[in-house]
Amino acid sequence: MRTLLHMPLDPASRMVRIVLAEKGLPAELVERRPWDDAEGALASVNPAGTVPVLIDEPPTGGEVAISPVSTIIEYLDEAYSNAPLLPSTSAARAEARRISFWFLDKFDKEVSDFTLRERVDKRLMRRGQPDYEKLKHGGEALVWHLDYAAWLLDQRHWLACERLTIADLAAAAQISALDYIDLVPWDKFPAVKDWYARIKSRPSLRPILRDRIDGLPPPAHYDNPDF
Amino acid sequence: MRTLLHMPLDPASRMVRIVLAEKGLPAELVERRPWDDAEGALASVNPAGTVPVLIDEPPTGGEVAISPVSTIIEYLDEAYSNAPLLPSTSAARAEARRISFWFLDKFDKEVSDFTLRERVDKRLMRRGQPDYEKLKHGGEALVWHLDYAAWLLDQRHWLACERLTIADLAAAAQISALDYIDLVPWDKFPAVKDWYARIKSRPSLRPILRDRIDGLPPPAHYDNPDF
Repeated sequence: MRTLLHMPLDPASRMVRIVLAEKGLPAELVERRPWDDAEGALASVNPAGTVPVLIDEPPTGGEVAISPVSTIIEYLDEAYSNAPLLPSTSAARAEARRISFWFLDKFDKEVSDFTLRERVDKRLMRRGQPDYEKLKHGGEALVWHLDYAAWLLDQRHWLACERLTIADLAAAAQISALDYIDLVPWDKFPAVKDWYARIKSRPSLRPILRDRIDGLPPPAHYDNPDF
Repeated sequence: MRTLLHMPLDPASRMVRIVLAEKGLPAELVERRPWDDAEGALASVNPAGTVPVLIDEPPTGGEVAISPVSTIIEYLDEAYSNAPLLPSTSAARAEARRISFWFLDKFDKEVSDFTLRERVDKRLMRRGQPDYEKLKHGGEALVWHLDYAAWLLDQRHWLACERLTIADLAAAAQISALDYIDLVPWDKFPAVKDWYARIKSRPSLRPILRDRIDGLPPPAHYDNPDF
């Protein structure tokens, strides 16, 4: 059975779940927290000790453990070529990968590290209250990133081109996690809100939007497609 | 003309130069320092403001600006399929991408940020002396990473499999930059030294090994294949 080692509010894990769902590939979800791997269950399949890790049985046989997120996405789009999530020309593929990396890496360091990890991971680790200076800093960076997304969407129907690509799924994975902690100023970014409403209505997002963290409920609009 | 915006001792820039040379693709090199982009020459082709950026005229026509490094590598291996730098099966490609990302991202954060950027970038920015605590920390992390490389090379002729892939070029790009500042304890890692000697003898490495930074000469063994 295909297995995904993940965390429910981890954006990279969410992105892999969305890609699996877009391609109609079922997977057993197993939660693994990188800071709590004393038995080495995670390190044994990923020496970097991070989630997500996909354990797959590829069509060519055998079993492979794949990480990190960018490698998992390339693997899934190559090995399961139905519903391709990259455009067909070299230049358009490069643009989709650039923006996907933007959200998985740059957005992650500048926004999610200061907000999501401060509010959620710190709570799971029982390491005290969030640092409000960090939350403020991350919130300001979020506005800058949403502005960039709005600028892209002013030129294109989806973030990288005229069709849905990994760029949209990477952005949706990050933004859905931040929306869980009610951090997204939707009213200030109508074009991004319209784009996210289109993403949210996809069946591939539904399982993600059903996740709940004990003692930390999402806002009422979180899983409502007409928010 | 194909153009690469780069910095001579930046590992990601070095990796792109090696890949271009492996594929026999000439490119004009233009040095750009991300911290000195007042005129926006870098930001106009890469909103993230980082090097490397490849400006290419693809076989299908037009001009495209591609970044960051992982996207440039995927683009070059797809658009110029001579001398492929990824293996042919999905599982082997995933392993090559995993290790390439390991060196471009994890090694970069844990080793190069504390050593190369402390010793070289800080000097170029005229921001004072290196912080010796950081150099020590980065040096300790380097030993751990070389140990991991040795463990991989105990199982395989090259880092990801039995043939040269992007994994080797990513590792060589990082290690060659650290070797310039004489930080690599070669004598403690004979298997890694043997692997690097094989890489160093490739014509694609020669232009890289000829780079010099004013006032910061490399050690005598730096560009000697029989070091």
